Amino acid sequence: MSKKVVIIGGVAAGPKVAAKLKRLDPEAEVVILEKGKFLSYAGCGLPYYIGGDIKEQKELMETPVGVMRDPEYFEKMKGVKVYNRTEALRIDRKKKEVEARRIDTGEVFSLTYDYLVLATGAEVAIPPIKAVDLENPNTELKLLDLGHVYTLHGIEDAEAIRWTIREKLAKKAVIIGGGLIGMEMTESLVKSGLEVTIIEVLPEILPILDEDMGILVRRYCQKKGVTVKVGERVERVEGEGGTVKRVITDKSSYEADLVILATGFRPNADLARKAGLEIGPNGGIKVDLFLRTSDPCIFACGDCVEVENLVCGKSAYMPMGSLANKQGRVVAINIAGGSEAFRGAVNSVIFKLFDYTIARCGLGVRQAKEMGYEVEYALVPAPDRAHYFPGAKRVITKLVVDKKSGKLLGGQFLGEGEVTKSVYAVATALHYGATIEEISNLDVPYAPPYASAIDNICVAANVVRNKLEGKMVGISPLEVERKRKRGEDFLLLDVRTPAEYQKVRIPGSTLIPLGALRSKLDTLPRDKEIVVFCAVSLRGYEASLILKAAGFENVKVMDGGLACWPYEVET
Amino acid sequence: MSKKVVIIGGVAAGPKVAAKLKRLDPEAEVVILEKGKFLSYAGCGLPYYIGGDIKEQKELMETPVGVMRDPEYFEKMKGVKVYNRTEALRIDRKKKEVEARRIDTGEVFSLTYDYLVLATGAEVAIPPIKAVDLENPNTELKLLDLGHVYTLHGIEDAEAIRWTIREKLAKKAVIIGGGLIGMEMTESLVKSGLEVTIIEVLPEILPILDEDMGILVRRYCQKKGVTVKVGERVERVEGEGGTVKRVITDKSSYEADLVILATGFRPNADLARKAGLEIGPNGGIKVDLFLRTSDPCIFACGDCVEVENLVCGKSAYMPMGSLANKQGRVVAINIAGGSEAFRGAVNSVIFKLFDYTIARCGLGVRQAKEMGYEVEYALVPAPDRAHYFPGAKRVITKLVVDKKSGKLLGGQFLGEGEVTKSVYAVATALHYGATIEEISNLDVPYAPPYASAIDNICVAANVVRNKLEGKMVGISPLEVERKRKRGEDFLLLDVRTPAEYQKVRIPGSTLIPLGALRSKLDTLPRDKEIVVFCAVSLRGYEASLILKAAGFENVKVMDGGLACWPYEVET
Repeated sequence: MSKKVVIIGGVAAGPKVAAKLKRLDPEAEVVILEKGKFLSYAGCGLPYYIGGDIKEQKELMETPVGVMRDPEYFEKMKGVKVYNRTEALRIDRKKKEVEARRIDTGEVFSLTYDYLVLATGAEVAIPPIKAVDLENPNTELKLLDLGHVYTLHGIEDAEAIRWTIREKLAKKAVIIGGGLIGMEMTESLVKSGLEVTIIEVLPEILPILDEDMGILVRRYCQKKGVTVKVGERVERVEGEGGTVKRVITDKSSYEADLVILATGFRPNADLARKAGLEIGPNGGIKVDLFLRTSDPCIFACGDCVEVENLVCGKSAYMPMGSLANKQGRVVAINIAGGSEAFRGAVNSVIFKLFDYTIARCGLGVRQAKEMGYEVEYALVPAPDRAHYFPGAKRVITKLVVDKKSGKLLGGQFLGEGEVTKSVYAVATALHYGATIEEISNLDVPYAPPYASAIDNICVAANVVRNKLEGKMVGISPLEVERKRKRGEDFLLLDVRTPAEYQKVRIPGSTLIPLGALRSKLDTLPRDKEIVVFCAVSLRGYEASLILKAAGFENVKVMDGGLACWPYEVET
Repeated sequence: MSKKVVIIGGVAAGPKVAAKLKRLDPEAEVVILEKGKFLSYAGCGLPYYIGGDIKEQKELMETPVGVMRDPEYFEKMKGVKVYNRTEALRIDRKKKEVEARRIDTGEVFSLTYDYLVLATGAEVAIPPIKAVDLENPNTELKLLDLGHVYTLHGIEDAEAIRWTIREKLAKKAVIIGGGLIGMEMTESLVKSGLEVTIIEVLPEILPILDEDMGILVRRYCQKKGVTVKVGERVERVEGEGGTVKRVITDKSSYEADLVILATGFRPNADLARKAGLEIGPNGGIKVDLFLRTSDPCIFACGDCVEVENLVCGKSAYMPMGSLANKQGRVVAINIAGGSEAFRGAVNSVIFKLFDYTIARCGLGVRQAKEMGYEVEYALVPAPDRAHYFPGAKRVITKLVVDKKSGKLLGGQFLGEGEVTKSVYAVATALHYGATIEEISNLDVPYAPPYASAIDNICVAANVVRNKLEGKMVGISPLEVERKRKRGEDFLLLDVRTPAEYQKVRIPGSTLIPLGALRSKLDTLPRDKEIVVFCAVSLRGYEASLILKAAGFENVKVMDGGLACWPYEVET
């Protein structure tokens, strides 16, 4: 007898399960229940649809050969029954039955299953921010009740934001939340001609990066004309006549005729919870290696589940379309009688921000420290290809390493140049518990249009190793700035050339070009901490070796040199 | 007492040893002997200097901050003594002494060493081709005696080729050899306005790729106006008045006023051989894990050594600038008293050819078969980012797998889109003996501007797995063409849409669109082999499943579909 499979959720993981399962087992009776109108659309493409890179809504819903993935497509081409605008209400695990309601008619019906798949996705985490309409100050409002306040969760949201922009109803946008979606929306809205302000409650934007990388992204946003506020809590959103007018924080007030709540996602695990399925420490559905929930007849996949972070072995929440698709495939194979494992992921993320590419994988310094690792890291600015090859652009590579084992823990990458290659290699290496020594000699291919002879990740690995071996003591630019602010007495020694120094320099820094250093050693204080740097801190490193050889004991190299210095400079 | 270190060779590995060693051990006395005039130049940049991407010779010899790496730089900045235009003649291992000769003065002198480093590089393998000057037919000539016949080995070669082009002394170039250097020179010469003919003796260009990939590159060259001849042996090069005029093969004759010998490299191991050091099976100097030769006081690195191919464990020759630099670092650490291993490499290669990027790593199908592996592979054309994202370009991904163990053996990648990321991930995975199952679920990052939700390498891994599990039987386009040529009776079934078919089709193919297949099963022959395909053979795969479910037994899917079909089409 053919298997009855009910899939709840029709955006990413759900349709993947359905299509793959029908290929493996054409006899299976597969039903998808989807709350929204649209099926199997490219949710990750929404910011680009809003920003105009993608012109038509249908492009997000078409197959590569231009066929619309609507319910009819699934039924005709894939043999999958689809109920859209249909909400799953309840799972009866004893009866193996799902109760659902058609949103348009209110009709409630039940479907029995042999296997149930939960692909219920994520929901936007709406923060407890007050909403007030000044014309009706006593009416209690929810944030999204105010006009032109949106989340970015589905096609409907994207259409509403596009409409607001197209109808010229908005000029000033406030994005609440400086995370991944906040960044993607920043580019979209700036491209649409809006003035954009980002407000982030944490001390730095992009908590998926370390602070030293996040601040570089913030400076870049500011360079692009975006106002970015960090460490500021939004307390109230005010509207007039039903439409948003301003955003009020604990520090200031911002006019706004468009507000995007980019306040993060959480797993949509309500249905699973109510059905008594096990939930993980991050609120996602708990699944085993085969993506089975605590009920062996119920699988779960996509943004509603937790996955193992392969770097640290901990359960984590990684709502990524790539994982949803891979998990969908795994679930289909297992329902079809196979035995396919999904072992976990390394939290790989990449995104575009104007001309920057920003990527990360594994653990950052902060995250690793919180988990009890003792960490070392390298912060290396370098061209993305041979420095003499036309079009070479600077990128910054950060590698994070466990001091005790020398194991690679993570990587972060950003810049106008190519960093995709770097994150692909490092993410792959993380799957295999690579050591930093192994990264040193990784045989990634080289030609001048694509890389330097020693690839940036190999260089970064060498820098970490120099630090681990005590050849070099690093200091973060952030820490240098804190020292300056505290008024500490130390020498900030710039070893670039006079020409470079004249062009741009850090206030209060002292210039001694590397070539002249040996002859000027007696002008340097032996009782003070010396922090050396250059453009990227390679000459800085050489200078520190000279100083150490000459008996200077308290010498540090500023990580990443001037290229990673995000504070005031003189020109 | 300070160590005396003599380094023979000053292009890539040698200067790297010197610079790193002086950082580790400032007291070491380090001497470089270099036969040529120029030191530490970017040899891999030469084709781009000829093609004009790089304007000035000095760009190839400057540090990223614009300092010329000449002998003075090494002496002043690095404390390294350099003898350029100085040839090492002989090594006396007992006395630990090198005899050398200054080329300009003829002066012979000796240097003693504690450690000797051989970084003698590679030399061009000149094939036994006759050279005749028709005006002096009885004078015996060497190929390079004829004017405008060049190799591409050093800056001097590049300058001579540039001069020939700049002085408009050449219009028609013949490149003998369709390997890596041949391809890079093709782009350079076409960009310089020359008519270019490539003559390759093997059945296909680019033996570093499999034939199914090589032929796609050949078609691309032809599309760019380049004449490419394969399976043709150059027998004679004719000149008049001292200058080359034509190239004569076993099949034809080609006018030429510029000839580039791109006939491969071999390790320059003469000095080592004469000194009685052990030589590997590929003619390179044999070194251990620490890059020591069979004499513990002599290290070797760069294009003169053999390295272990980490995929198969065999000794191999991989003359790559990236390895030379990494090895130089390793040698320096070991001379300085450390214990650093260079474990080997995976034969990663990348190069640019007009708008194509072409890359490979590990073993190809042919190479793997020669080594006794039973192989399976996937050939997958797909966009390099989300298909709906502007600028998405098609790339072709090939993965090669050991049938018995499921172990990944290699990858090949080409196209106008981004493939660097793919080869970086696959090369990294090869270092760790990854299985194809692991590649399926590799967590490489995803966003629409950078990748598809299921990355191309994951898709290719899934295709291989489908083949390994018997869900799909593949057939190479090359094999299909051979069947056609042999006049075999089989059905070539195109399952695209009528609109696609009308635009372009394979002669003799039959169209049944995928959606109509189920209803037309009885029109298909049950006794014949059926080869199905579509644009990329994804619908082709679905069609094969339908046919198999309907009891058709002899069904194959043409690898890569029309996108990988390199033969005649009708439009």
